[in-house]
Amino acid sequence: MKLAALEYNVLSSEPVVMMNADDCLELGVGPDDRVRIAGGSSAVSTVAITDFLVRKGTIAMPSYVLDRCSAEDGDMVDVAYSPMPGSIRSLKRKIEGGKLDREAMGSIVADIMAGNLSDKEILAFVSAFNVNNADLEEVAYLTRAMADTGTVVDFGVRPVFDFHSLGGVPGNKITPMVVSIVASEGLTIPKLSSRAVSSACGTADLVDTFCDVEMDSESLKAAVRRNGGVFACGNEDYAPVGTKIIKAERPLGIDPRPTMMASIMSKKVALGTTHLLVDIPFGAGSKIPDVAAARNIAKDLRDLGTVLGMHVECAASRADQPLGTSIGPVLEAKECIRALESRDGDPSVIDKACGMAGIILEMAGEKDGRRKAEEIFRSGRAHSKFLEIVAAQNGSPDLKSDDLKPGAFVKDVHAKRDGTVQMVDNPSIVAIAKGAGAPSDVGAGIVLLRKRGDVVKEGDVLFRIYAENQGKLDRAIESARSRRPMLVSGNPVERQPADMIAERIPSKEMLDLIRFRSS
Amino acid sequence: MKLAALEYNVLSSEPVVMMNADDCLELGVGPDDRVRIAGGSSAVSTVAITDFLVRKGTIAMPSYVLDRCSAEDGDMVDVAYSPMPGSIRSLKRKIEGGKLDREAMGSIVADIMAGNLSDKEILAFVSAFNVNNADLEEVAYLTRAMADTGTVVDFGVRPVFDFHSLGGVPGNKITPMVVSIVASEGLTIPKLSSRAVSSACGTADLVDTFCDVEMDSESLKAAVRRNGGVFACGNEDYAPVGTKIIKAERPLGIDPRPTMMASIMSKKVALGTTHLLVDIPFGAGSKIPDVAAARNIAKDLRDLGTVLGMHVECAASRADQPLGTSIGPVLEAKECIRALESRDGDPSVIDKACGMAGIILEMAGEKDGRRKAEEIFRSGRAHSKFLEIVAAQNGSPDLKSDDLKPGAFVKDVHAKRDGTVQMVDNPSIVAIAKGAGAPSDVGAGIVLLRKRGDVVKEGDVLFRIYAENQGKLDRAIESARSRRPMLVSGNPVERQPADMIAERIPSKEMLDLIRFRSS
Repeated sequence: MKLAALEYNVLSSEPVVMMNADDCLELGVGPDDRVRIAGGSSAVSTVAITDFLVRKGTIAMPSYVLDRCSAEDGDMVDVAYSPMPGSIRSLKRKIEGGKLDREAMGSIVADIMAGNLSDKEILAFVSAFNVNNADLEEVAYLTRAMADTGTVVDFGVRPVFDFHSLGGVPGNKITPMVVSIVASEGLTIPKLSSRAVSSACGTADLVDTFCDVEMDSESLKAAVRRNGGVFACGNEDYAPVGTKIIKAERPLGIDPRPTMMASIMSKKVALGTTHLLVDIPFGAGSKIPDVAAARNIAKDLRDLGTVLGMHVECAASRADQPLGTSIGPVLEAKECIRALESRDGDPSVIDKACGMAGIILEMAGEKDGRRKAEEIFRSGRAHSKFLEIVAAQNGSPDLKSDDLKPGAFVKDVHAKRDGTVQMVDNPSIVAIAKGAGAPSDVGAGIVLLRKRGDVVKEGDVLFRIYAENQGKLDRAIESARSRRPMLVSGNPVERQPADMIAERIPSKEMLDLIRFRSS
Repeated sequence: MKLAALEYNVLSSEPVVMMNADDCLELGVGPDDRVRIAGGSSAVSTVAITDFLVRKGTIAMPSYVLDRCSAEDGDMVDVAYSPMPGSIRSLKRKIEGGKLDREAMGSIVADIMAGNLSDKEILAFVSAFNVNNADLEEVAYLTRAMADTGTVVDFGVRPVFDFHSLGGVPGNKITPMVVSIVASEGLTIPKLSSRAVSSACGTADLVDTFCDVEMDSESLKAAVRRNGGVFACGNEDYAPVGTKIIKAERPLGIDPRPTMMASIMSKKVALGTTHLLVDIPFGAGSKIPDVAAARNIAKDLRDLGTVLGMHVECAASRADQPLGTSIGPVLEAKECIRALESRDGDPSVIDKACGMAGIILEMAGEKDGRRKAEEIFRSGRAHSKFLEIVAAQNGSPDLKSDDLKPGAFVKDVHAKRDGTVQMVDNPSIVAIAKGAGAPSDVGAGIVLLRKRGDVVKEGDVLFRIYAENQGKLDRAIESARSRRPMLVSGNPVERQPADMIAERIPSKEMLDLIRFRSS
């Protein structure tokens, strides 16, 4: 059937083409059926059937569907009934509690990638594929199929290391430090980071304040060959189907473990990672409540790594207050660079960065990784490597932390009484920083002048809010007033322990034993 | 915000209200957010945001949403942001693999019933609540919550028996016979049947050809008090939320076991059933492949019954060819009534009806239920009871099978060779009967003149198609040509065994043992 295309913009998690009921009757198309729309190219979409909103003879299509079938508003397009994609059968099997093999999982991923499954169907898949209805083999099939939807890079070297944080702790600016330390030892660590999703600052957001983060796979390869490491943005080149799955999950705000693990690991598979360290932040106000929960997810990640032929270790890190003292892109970049240039800084940042880098060095065969990592950091070698990487990403080779300027609109928040800081509430800190404009206003954020266990007098500055304009500063102040970002009381309270990594999983002793046995 | 209501009809599994992007911006409403729309009353709906399809100042609403907020096309309605319903939290917990308690399950069911969850969210729930992520306690909570969404009847007597078939076998016209036999013994069996969903004839469709099937709960109670049994339609009065769940499942054609069991059992709970027999048809061309699969589902149903305080037994019945000789409302009604009036008929029908009724009689304490059931059937008592029930449902007290007339457009299908009937294919028979117009054309259907194991000569009539007009008859003939409804070859093949019930679960011996032990 020839119909005139009618462009419309619809914001809904389930955009569909809309057709007139008479046309649908003639075409034999029922509600939720699919049509294939052919312009210069062809695309498949589910159909909503309406009466007068769309005139007979026309088909209302969201812009992205128009693009996919290479048509423009007003063009005549050919519309035909399209049968259900084959992967629906596999999706149904999963919902009925059955197991999916490599081919079935591959067909689901291919159909998500091609836009043949609606967001509703993707959500049904994710819901069915929950922890109690997914085994590691299936997750591995999903992971590999997801990796195959984008570029697969071969750096031509082995081993390839990577570092990944499950997130949830504000101020976690250690990634450029870890990469710089590890790459100083001549190891390959092509680290792709992401921008903030719900946080106030992702690693890509902070790096973006001082050098380029977008790199195509050729420049990525060249940079890795030269410097061993990069701090790039994990863009849509790698396992791009993950973004479509996340989009379908978003309306419910869910992130079930099997698809979450596959999304993470698919990007690592696409980069040929052989050795991966995963940071699992835990504690009040973060995503993972305690060490036991961290161990549980660590075990799943390690086992998935085994099925995928990837050596995966995990480190459970304390995350019940922000890491370091700053939150927000420019502020975090400053703290990170200042630590590298001064070879010192907030103990939580130095400890976590050297601890994580140390584990990676041990994965590469170093005996005492932490000592080695600290030596590289204190000697300034990490700083030199950092500047090499920055230069390779078109940043200044003489970059200084003082070059970066936070927002000019500033407000200090004071203690209302004498006492001790009982806690710094992660969700509140994130909400205030976002209220101030982070991460899109890169100068916006928070600097903590006090942390848990610090003794304060009435009137002391607890934290400082930065914004790029008065309106957003006011919004952040309002947000701070309606929340409890920092609690001061007369009770004594312990400071954060000096060791940020509560547990390595598997432990070093366990790993030594495994190596001893297998040698 | 005041907006003009604009009625539109949309056929989609996910009808939403549509608002202009400018109005949404002003209201702070994003894609997939909910709005509360207040006219005479108020309703909640998810929102699709569009540009020019809906003008600023108006809100396009499907008719049923207009109805729910007591507004008409053109009325001004008040539109406000509505937060996510509380049950979304429970839904997310289920997707993350957690367990739901009575309250959480109740809130999900209440929100489905109130229209606060979209079809997409209901589908996500059903997908997450699969066999590997649901336990019996949760299914019981779901069942009870579903029962509470409609009328709950108390017949004032105990025990209350019921009989339910999982369906999937064409020609299964035994329900009025089972009810008549059981009610002849003075037992209470308020049988509610359904119309065809995907089959050619549901029990309610065949009963509807000779008496009323729709009864409100008061007339249901009166009829049950007088006659012990009814053959009514299980309408929207009882556990109506089930229909909303089925609607959300339909686009994917799924029916996962936990929600399927809860849907069935919720109607029984609403009727105060204390003793339930479930017929589980199995075999090639039916829903359940073999006895092992039937045992598996029987165990789940029995265990759920235990949690619900209901005595549940099951019977696995042979279903690899149609039951009896007729398919379609009038034709099945004729076969059923003729068996009752002649006290004889196709052995498969008589055996299954007396076998099922016999099990129910034994559940009521009878020693040899089948013998008793056959005695009631052969003596004509079942026929008398049947006519009493028909009369109570405004049918003729002198109803004869010959009163019912099938469609006048008839086509015989002949054997093309000598041989033996190897199989009668259930899905093909259903497709041809539906092609002929069944179940909406009540006179349409099929009469089988041969069944498996019958020896035929070339030219013998294998089956006869009935339709109410030539067009549909032609369509059915065409459907028969493109399929293999009956396969004739030279190989010898066994007839269907005389005993239609392959296995009683638990077996009578097992039950006797249980009774012996507990006495």
